[in-house]
Order: sequence, then structure tokens, then C-alpha cells
Amino acid sequence: MTKVIMNGCNGRMGQVITGLIEQDETVEIVAGIDQYDGIKNDYPVYASIEDCEVEADAVIDFSNAAAVDGLLDYCVKRQIPVVLCSTGLSEEQLKKVEESSKKVAVLKSANMSLGVNTLLEILPKIVKILAPAGFDMEIVEKHHNQKLDAPSGTALALADCLNDAVGGDYEYKYDRTKERKKREKNEIGISAVRGGSIVGEHEIIFAGMDEVIEVKHTAYSRAIFGKGAIEAAKFLNGKPAGRYDMSDVIRG
Amino acid sequence: MTKVIMNGCNGRMGQVITGLIEQDETVEIVAGIDQYDGIKNDYPVYASIEDCEVEADAVIDFSNAAAVDGLLDYCVKRQIPVVLCSTGLSEEQLKKVEESSKKVAVLKSANMSLGVNTLLEILPKIVKILAPAGFDMEIVEKHHNQKLDAPSGTALALADCLNDAVGGDYEYKYDRTKERKKREKNEIGISAVRGGSIVGEHEIIFAGMDEVIEVKHTAYSRAIFGKGAIEAAKFLNGKPAGRYDMSDVIRG
Amino acid sequence: MTKVIMNGCNGRMGQVITGLIEQDETVEIVAGIDQYDGIKNDYPVYASIEDCEVEADAVIDFSNAAAVDGLLDYCVKRQIPVVLCSTGLSEEQLKKVEESSKKVAVLKSANMSLGVNTLLEILPKIVKILAPAGFDMEIVEKHHNQKLDAPSGTALALADCLNDAVGGDYEYKYDRTKERKKREKNEIGISAVRGGSIVGEHEIIFAGMDEVIEVKHTAYSRAIFGKGAIEAAKFLNGKPAGRYDMSDVIRG
Amino acid sequence: MTKVIMNGCNGRMGQVITGLIEQDETVEIVAGIDQYDGIKNDYPVYASIEDCEVEADAVIDFSNAAAVDGLLDYCVKRQIPVVLCSTGLSEEQLKKVEESSKKVAVLKSANMSLGVNTLLEILPKIVKILAPAGFDMEIVEKHHNQKLDAPSGTALALADCLNDAVGGDYEYKYDRTKERKKREKNEIGISAVRGGSIVGEHEIIFAGMDEVIEVKHTAYSRAIFGKGAIEAAKFLNGKPAGRYDMSDVIRG
Repeated sequence: MTKVIMNGCNGRMGQVITGLIEQDETVEIVAGIDQYDGIKNDYPVYASIEDCEVEADAVIDFSNAAAVDGLLDYCVKRQIPVVLCSTGLSEEQLKKVEESSKKVAVLKSANMSLGVNTLLEILPKIVKILAPAGFDMEIVEKHHNQKLDAPSGTALALADCLNDAVGGDYEYKYDRTKERKKREKNEIGISAVRGGSIVGEHEIIFAGMDEVIEVKHTAYSRAIFGKGAIEAAKFLNGKPAGRYDMSDVIRG
Repeated sequence: MTKVIMNGCNGRMGQVITGLIEQDETVEIVAGIDQYDGIKNDYPVYASIEDCEVEADAVIDFSNAAAVDGLLDYCVKRQIPVVLCSTGLSEEQLKKVEESSKKVAVLKSANMSLGVNTLLEILPKIVKILAPAGFDMEIVEKHHNQKLDAPSGTALALADCLNDAVGGDYEYKYDRTKERKKREKNEIGISAVRGGSIVGEHEIIFAGMDEVIEVKHTAYSRAIFGKGAIEAAKFLNGKPAGRYDMSDVIRG
Repeated sequence: MTKVIMNGCNGRMGQVITGLIEQDETVEIVAGIDQYDGIKNDYPVYASIEDCEVEADAVIDFSNAAAVDGLLDYCVKRQIPVVLCSTGLSEEQLKKVEESSKKVAVLKSANMSLGVNTLLEILPKIVKILAPAGFDMEIVEKHHNQKLDAPSGTALALADCLNDAVGGDYEYKYDRTKERKKREKNEIGISAVRGGSIVGEHEIIFAGMDEVIEVKHTAYSRAIFGKGAIEAAKFLNGKPAGRYDMSDVIRG
Repeated sequence: MTKVIMNGCNGRMGQVITGLIEQDETVEIVAGIDQYDGIKNDYPVYASIEDCEVEADAVIDFSNAAAVDGLLDYCVKRQIPVVLCSTGLSEEQLKKVEESSKKVAVLKSANMSLGVNTLLEILPKIVKILAPAGFDMEIVEKHHNQKLDAPSGTALALADCLNDAVGGDYEYKYDRTKERKKREKNEIGISAVRGGSIVGEHEIIFAGMDEVIEVKHTAYSRAIFGKGAIEAAKFLNGKPAGRYDMSDVIRG
């Protein structure tokens, strides 16, 4: 049984994870942290993590960048591994993540879903077979019409994964309409589609002579990020200090 | 039986059409026109269309822009309907097409395939249901890595078709990576993927609240353009002067 | 403003519709009916519809087959149009639906989503162009691993829609592995994929010589059925007695 | 430079390979074998392989089952490695393949394309991550309407590949319409779509809780099998006796 402190328990993802953990007998939330107290949970909720002295095996964090410094100090001091899912960290904070990971186990990933991390795991193997055979690589991602950034962070992580596998010197191409020319060999096209309430779809295309391989991930709800965070918390339970990511969880 | 003069008979598409017509009992090539004489066909071949006095019901043209002026004069003079598939016509030539169509039947379409023209036929009906219900519209097209232009002419024809159906004031969006903002309601995103030897794929996406409709056309070979041209020739047989396109052929 | 009685208000779909209506200013729930009273709603809830005397423009029904007889009597007596979404009705009940519809407006559809009904609207137009040109028609549907029936009712409704458009004499083919033979012209293949928590995907494939058109609907949540029911209730408001379905709503 | 004898040089695939090799400077056809002599090739053609004494590094075989016995004897006697692509071999012939491979290099694969063999290479890695996480596995394949067998040999090879990765005790499910029940955990659904002139499409679906991974291979022409055979011939050049398949070629 992995005992978890849920940082940001009354936010959207905090509640998703609360629901998922209720159905999982190998993990339990022993305390929640949130300044908002309008939701009744089955576990005690503290306004500030500093006030929480409950014994725990891991912290899952889906709060916000502002709360991350206090969180890291807390985890180092109490020696509790942390699954860090807040986004938008500053350069300084990213540095603090690195330093903290020398003293306690810290897991941070571009995308928390099992599916996307499976892709990150197998794409290099595909690239190593198909790129030498002359296949071109392209990415198409689709998200809802409220998303501010394009392409998605996950699409960029996938592109970096492809690029690393060919030696890292490919150019990312976001728009082909401004010039009239053939595709260059060493580029990765990245297209961003926006519409409706699409949760998130990422397709990687390997196009060769008369054959195409497509690898596609479709998310149906944000619950998959919560599920990934829970698996990560179980994995971190008992792990020594260090920087981890979802690929470690996948490899077991 | 429709008797056809094949203009550009020894080019790639001319030979594709020659092969297709051999298997079709309702149409026959009675003469070919081509300056290149290295291919042996079952019909007489003339270096110049002016020299051809064979009786015919239609001309199928897959030659080149330079040959179009002579072709139009010929068709008007001999009163033979023409399926005009050469691309890259100048403004002046397009004007000549219009004028000629007052004197003889002329068919010209952005895309000659039955499939793409079926899409152009039904998309307005989909738009009229889904656009008022708040669905966003996006287009993704995929073509081989030798294609010079992006997006494809067919993708633009499809976008125009969608746009016309909503009143014509939507903006086409080719790149979303340069700014950080939500999708605007009145835009149509158009993405161009390039790779390998992909013949041509066009996908129209209607994305709403928790549901998505995708309409996709995949071409497996350029033979589909030849097949469309043959159907067009049969359709034009006996038709009065006028400007036609593939939607007329589809509606019969 | 359309005033709605929500029959089965405390079930899964009843609560989905309650949530959707809260965000829609043109419709309002004035009363709910449910034997289960463990949920607190912003409207009065009656254990039995007979007890509800609130004035209303339409009833939305997502209860169960057992409740349908009483519901129809009630709607006829009080002359309130009804959107009937309970499934598994007996032959006798279906007959009662027909009879009731002579006295009050009754809407019943195989699938309540706007998207699927859009497909049912446009597919006949596609069939009429592509079937004479020799295109083969196939359906692939995908649903979650808990679904009991295969193929889905929606897949069958789509197949019937295609079949009607070709004259109604095509055979549905569910398994091709038991014999070694070419595809027959007059058949519609229907494949059912089951896995994970897939909400519902329906793809109709038109395959011709070197080109393929695919029309696909993807549901991301069951909320789309609730949204369709709400649109149907607005549409029925003030309509005379008669049998309606979602195609009437779509055509406005 | 790999010197190749093309067995079945005047058949469809023999001619495809002849064309591909003309454009490849690292391989050359030094002799062809075919009973049909109506095609003029740039290399000498023998009616029977026994008559061919030309020096060669490999034989590529796309003939027919009847010719395979003589071919194997020839390759053993002359110690020339062979890429065996004829299909429909009898049990006895398969045994002879095994025996011959003890004396000369023999390569035989269910599917000769680089793309499909890439899938066979990476699918076990995906299965090992996703199957323990509860993902269901399904296969959908699409082929032209003239294909006699269903599912395709490639679909079965893919299913075997998935099945081996989970320990080999999953059941293949071809039809779910005959019974009313939930999907069993240990089954792999296989659906066969037939229509038009589709060359070959294979999609493997991993469906989990709220996320789906799809891996899809699309063939645009049969040239991909010829290309694979040529790569195999280059690979076999100089290899010792043994049984090889395309996975050896891919791994280099």
C-alpha cells in the first residue's frame, strides 16, 4: 500500500486522482493540501503543506507553479518522494528541481499518460529502422479550441524524441505555405489542428516509398494523466534520491 | 459509344487513360495527339491537333498550358466538347476558356476524381447542419515529398467549399505556432503534411462538443484523375455549349 | 424558453442533462422524476410522473422500459411532447409509441447525437453517387469492452441507411473468415471492435478503384446524447401530434 | 554489387523488381527464369532454372509453389542463397525449406515489406508495456474486393506477434455478433474489411482506460514487397547456411 499526500487535492486533477485512488486497493490518500476547502473529501485537508505531518510514501502534485518551491523544500526535509505535475515552472524553479532531486526522489515528465510515454519509448526504435531507409517523419496533433499554445508540449517532446534518434540535426517545420519547394530530407513537419473539445490526439507519420506507418495516441479524458501520476507514485515509493521520469515507471 | 481524341496521348496521364479506355466498352479513343512518337498505340497519333480530321464526340486534354490555345480554337471550330485537364493556365488563357465555352462545351475542374468531387458535393450539407451547432472546421492534407505547393489546390477548393457554405467570411489559418491564443470561431485551419510517395489524402474535420466527424479521401494512384476525365467525356458527348465541371458529371 | 420535465433525472444521463441545461439559457428543467432521491437537484423531484402537475413544454425521458407505458399515458393526457430515449422497448411498447404519437408529439431515434444523425442525413447522398460507380461499402465500429451487443444499434442504423439508398437488397456480412471467396458486390461488411473504454466510433468506408472515402464519427462522452435530447426537446416545443426523429431536428 | 537471379522474372512481381533494380546501383539482375518469354528484358532469360549457369550471389523467387522444389535443389547444389517469396507451399515443401536451410541461406517471411516487418519488430515492446496495464488488443485489416482469404496472412502474423508477447494463450475472435456478452480479457479481435482496390492496410489497436494507441501500416502498391525482397537479397549475399527472415534484414 502506497500512502499518498495529494497536493492540490481540490483542483480538477486532484479530484480526478481522488476518484481513481478510491478504486485502487494498492494506494491510498492519507492527506490533501488545498487552500480551497469547499469540497468534502474522505481524508484530512490542510491549507498549507507545511502543516501536514501525516506519514506518507509519496506526494502527488497537481497544484501550480507558485506552490512548487514550498513543496520541494517539504519533500527534501521529510524525505518523501514527489511526482511533480505542476506546469509553467520558471528557469530558477527547474534548477531547484534538479538540486532537490539530489536529496530526494523527484519525478517530472512532459506528459504523464502511459500511452504517450509508451510512444516515447518505442519511437526511437522505429526511427532507427525507417530513417536510414529514407522515410520522412511528420507529426499531426489535435486539441480543443481553448488551447493557447501550438504545437502542444507533447508534440514537441515527440519531435525531440524523433530528432534525437536521427542525431539531433533535423529542423522543425510548422508552415509550408510560405514557399514553393520540395520537402527537405532533414525536417520534421509539425501540424496543429484545433477544434471543439478534442482532449488530445498525437499522430506520428513515417512516409516512405509506397508505404506509410502511422502511430497515433488518442486521449479521451484527462483522467489518463491522473492514472499515470498514481502509477508514478507507486513506483517512487522507497526509491532513492534522483531525477526520474515516466520512462522509468514504464520500464519498471 | 463515345469517340474520344486524346490530347497528350503519350504523356503519363494520356497512357493511363489509354489503358483505362481499353477496358471500357462505352468509350473509344479514335485519335491521339502528341509530339512524342516513341509509344505505339492502337489508334493513329498526330503531332498537331490541327492535322486531326477524325470524327469525335469529345477531346480529353492532359497536355500542357502551351497547347491549350490551339486546342480551344480547334474544339470551337470543329464543335467538339473538351475535358480540359492541363494545369497552370495563364489569366489570359482562363479568359479564353470562358469565351470558348460560349461556343462549345468545356469542362474544367480543380480535381478530376469522382471521390473529391463527391466531397465537394456533400460538404455544404454537413456544414449547414454542424456550423450553426458550433462545430469547428479544419483540413489536413498529405502529399509526397516532391510536391512544390502547399496547401494543395484540392485542399483550397475544399476550404472554399466549406467557406462558401458559411457565407464566405472565414479566414484560412496555415500556422498557429507564431502566437499564443485560443482558436477564433471564424477560421478554417489548413495543415499540409509532406512525406514519401503519398499520392494524396484530404481530411476534413468537424470538431464539436465531445464529438468529431471526419470525412477523408485517399487517392491510391493518379488513375483516378483519368477515370474522372473519361466519365466527363462521356457526359459531355452531345452537350450544348457551356462551362461545366465535375459536379455536373456527378449529378448526371 | 422551453420548460422540461426530466424523466429519470437522477440516473447517469439525467444528471448529464441537468448539467448541460444549467449552461443553456433557452431551456430549463421545471421538474424531475426519479424513484431514487439521493441527489439534490435545483428542481422538485417526484417519485412518480403521475404526481407531477408542473406546467411543461416537453418531457425528456432517459429512464427505463418499465416506466415507458406510464410516461406515454401521461404525455397524451397532459398533451406534453416527449423525447423518448429509454431503450429495450418490447414490441407491444413500440406499438403503444405509434398509437400515442397520433395524439401527442413523440420523438424517438436510434442514436440521439447530432453527429450520427448528420451522417444518417448525408450518407444516402454519397451512396447515390458512389454505389453506381462501383464503390463497395463497409462499416467499422469501435466500443468499450463492457458492451454486450455487436454490432452496435447505431452501426445497424447506418447500414440500413446505406442499404435503403441502394434499394434495400444488400446483405450484411459480419464474418469473412469462414469461407474462401471474393467479396460479393451486394454486401455491406460490418466489423465490431471492442476494447478499453472507447465511448463509440463509427466509420463508413466507400472503397472504389484506387480511391477511398471514409466518413467517421467519434464520440468522446455520452454527453452528446444528452445534448441531442435537449435540442430535440426545444424542437418539439409546440409541435403537433406525430412521430418525429432526430432528422426532423436537424432539418429544423 | 549483389548479382541476382530473378526466378519468375516475367510475372507481375518479377517485372516490378526488374524495374526497381534498374534504379539501384548496388544490385544487378544477371539472369531471369520464366517459362513465358513474351517480355524483352536486359538480362538473359531461361525457361528452367536448371539451365542457368550464370554466377550469382542470390536468387529472388516470386514464381509459384510448383517451382519451389526445383529451386531449392538448385540453390543447395550451387550454394546460392535464396529469398523465397512464392506462397501456398505444402507441408512437405515447408519441410524441404527447413532441410535446405541447413545447407544454404534461405529467407522466407510472411510479409516482405519493410513497414510490416518494422511493426513485427516493435509490437512486442508495446505489448509488454500496455498488456500488463490492462489494454485490450484488436486488429483491423483492409484489402481489395478480389482477395480470397480473410483475415490476411499478415494480420495473422501480427496477431501471432501480439499473442507471443503475452505468453501465447489469447484467443482470436473473428465475429462478435453471434453472442451477447462482454469482451473477454484474453482475446484478440481480428476484423477484415474488403472493398475496391485497397492494396493493404493493417491497424493494431491498443485500447485502455480513456486512451488508445493505434499503429497502422498502409501499402500503396505491391512494389514494397519487391523492395523488401531486394534488400533481403543484398543481406543474404555471403551469408552462411541458415533460416532467415525479414527481421534479420531489419536488424542488419
